[in-house]
Amino acid sequence: MIIQKTENSRISTFDPNNFSFGGTFSDHMIICEYEDGKWGEVKLVPYGPLLFTPAMMGVNYGQACFEGMKAYKDKDGQVFLFRPEKNFERINKSANRLAMPSVTEEIFLEGLKALIDIDREWVPQGEGNSLYIRPLIFATEEALKARISNKYMFAIVATPAKMYYTEPVSVKISDHYSRAASGGVGSAKAAGNYAASFYPTQLAMEEGYDQIIWTDDATHEYFEESGTMNVFVRINDTIYTPPTSEKILDGVTRDSFIQLANRRGFDVKVEPIKVKDVVEAQKNGTLKEVWGVGTAVVTTVFQALGYNGEKLELPRLSDEESFAVILKNDLVNLQNNLSEDPFGWRVLVDHALETV
Amino acid sequence: MIIQKTENSRISTFDPNNFSFGGTFSDHMIICEYEDGKWGEVKLVPYGPLLFTPAMMGVNYGQACFEGMKAYKDKDGQVFLFRPEKNFERINKSANRLAMPSVTEEIFLEGLKALIDIDREWVPQGEGNSLYIRPLIFATEEALKARISNKYMFAIVATPAKMYYTEPVSVKISDHYSRAASGGVGSAKAAGNYAASFYPTQLAMEEGYDQIIWTDDATHEYFEESGTMNVFVRINDTIYTPPTSEKILDGVTRDSFIQLANRRGFDVKVEPIKVKDVVEAQKNGTLKEVWGVGTAVVTTVFQALGYNGEKLELPRLSDEESFAVILKNDLVNLQNNLSEDPFGWRVLVDHALETV
Ligand SMILES: Cc1ncc(COP(=O)(O)O)c(C=O)c1O
Ligand SMILES: Cc1ncc(COP(=O)(O)O)c(C=O)c1O
Repeated sequence: MIIQKTENSRISTFDPNNFSFGGTFSDHMIICEYEDGKWGEVKLVPYGPLLFTPAMMGVNYGQACFEGMKAYKDKDGQVFLFRPEKNFERINKSANRLAMPSVTEEIFLEGLKALIDIDREWVPQGEGNSLYIRPLIFATEEALKARISNKYMFAIVATPAKMYYTEPVSVKISDHYSRAASGGVGSAKAAGNYAASFYPTQLAMEEGYDQIIWTDDATHEYFEESGTMNVFVRINDTIYTPPTSEKILDGVTRDSFIQLANRRGFDVKVEPIKVKDVVEAQKNGTLKEVWGVGTAVVTTVFQALGYNGEKLELPRLSDEESFAVILKNDLVNLQNNLSEDPFGWRVLVDHALETV
Repeated sequence: MIIQKTENSRISTFDPNNFSFGGTFSDHMIICEYEDGKWGEVKLVPYGPLLFTPAMMGVNYGQACFEGMKAYKDKDGQVFLFRPEKNFERINKSANRLAMPSVTEEIFLEGLKALIDIDREWVPQGEGNSLYIRPLIFATEEALKARISNKYMFAIVATPAKMYYTEPVSVKISDHYSRAASGGVGSAKAAGNYAASFYPTQLAMEEGYDQIIWTDDATHEYFEESGTMNVFVRINDTIYTPPTSEKILDGVTRDSFIQLANRRGFDVKVEPIKVKDVVEAQKNGTLKEVWGVGTAVVTTVFQALGYNGEKLELPRLSDEESFAVILKNDLVNLQNNLSEDPFGWRVLVDHALETV
């Protein structure tokens, strides 16, 4: 790894009590370039601009995929990653579906640890705080032909993060727009999936909702995901979540929730969720909770579902009654080293670059 | 418009008889930046790299769309665009679906004419030759939150082009992968649509095909498009093409073919095409031709259709018998100023920047 430390650290300008998520970047970034059929050396360099022309295939043909993960700082200042090998696996799954080269463990995991090590001061401490980390691969060849690129860049950038939604949100069950096609790229964290969701989300916001629950594009009868989260539904005391598929992203938070719920002895069913069944459960009072989970938001509890022009209100449970809140706390405590880690999910970021 | 002419023209290095499509760029490009809710001034500058970080939203969330069009040079050296207002309309339709700002006629059409005027020497003369032009809009804000970007770049770059496919090609009728979801972005020239198509196309190539005929994602029973082309089927003497929809790109070449076919008195039906009907027509000998149309390739005639593990051969018609070839010639002659233009499709590019 080539390491070029910044001579102008911006850390003194970073106020952990006053920053906006997503727009403040840590001092460094990882970059690695792919050419002639292979990846070059990993470089740790100051965060900043690089040279690309508007003919770059990444922006022309959307050959680009990414990951989202976080680093957490405990009360002693130790920094942890959470299940990073899951993101490593998933970026390669996404890359494969988009006909892009996979990255090696050395590039992804070693690059990641080096970046978080050197930028550990950028990981804010305290409840709900973390450093959000964005690994990505995008096509960099300059060519105007719709074909697989011959050049790529792998990069990791990071931005301090705090709690996303603080209020419970209302979500609209989609009856027209959709996120993924059968035989499409819904299970990949493909760049284009996100752009496709913005306009429908904006329309839902104009109707007074915060987010969308995506349904299958053919019939709109089944739940898929919610915004950029996987979705859970609780009817009586049973928790449901749809199985992952080629249309549903295999979320790390979803998987962790399922395991945490099992540990608590909650009844979890991984099976298709029918819109009709959820609406019926709401009408007959058995629908207790609906929530979304993902790295960025951790958990968002929904207070109402929009369906067919109606706003279906959900009960307001106390923190003790809410499975969503109980499981969220289990997860957050584990991520922040406030509880045991029987699963081996936490990965300590060593101090390896101090003498560089 | 701010005009900054190159001081190092590369035109002397350009050999119109020996270049590869898509990788050679003309001397200049148009750029225009969007910020604070409005577009800035249009700039005509030397083609080359600009500064972007890997946090650029365009490559993270795929908020990017493009156009593809061509400039043609006639035997007297006059340069023409073909129906540029259609591409102007369509880029704004794409932008709208991706929650991006639309561009004005001044930015798009004036920028386009200025670029082609100044780089007119890059338009190669002769049959099948042209300058391929790529207008695009992409998100440039640096932010790691999946939301609508606040900053964009509009750009136009150009590359000399020649005939695409020279041989008739074999195409596979897709029975698993798909290009577009109902309620998705198939009718937009969204960057992400192309990346999504590469892997399935690669698989089809490994099976010995050159391209895919996309079918509807829910049932795979209906033709949608072929590769990056709209598709036409001729059964006996009737030409069929599917109606455009939210899943099918509204191609300029498709529209031109329909009008040219009508002018010739051919029987053209714009209606859904069932895979089953095409296969049946092939079996009973009434399937005469299947072809794809688009700006890049103009027309590609298919010699075989892959379906259900079978390779269905198509008849080899002479140029005089082939509706595809007759209509292609009508179009190419019109584009290259070799025939009358009763439709008013040709737009002459004036010499306006000579004294700059
Ligand atoms: C579409 C989509 N679904 C679900 C998730 C949740 O995945 P994870 O828990 O791995 O963050 C994400 C990412 O945050 C996503 O983009
Ligand atoms: C998906 C797709 N379909 C069809 C076409 C044909 O459109 P046009 O004739 O406007 O080039 C294109 C663009 O070339 C395309 O990308």
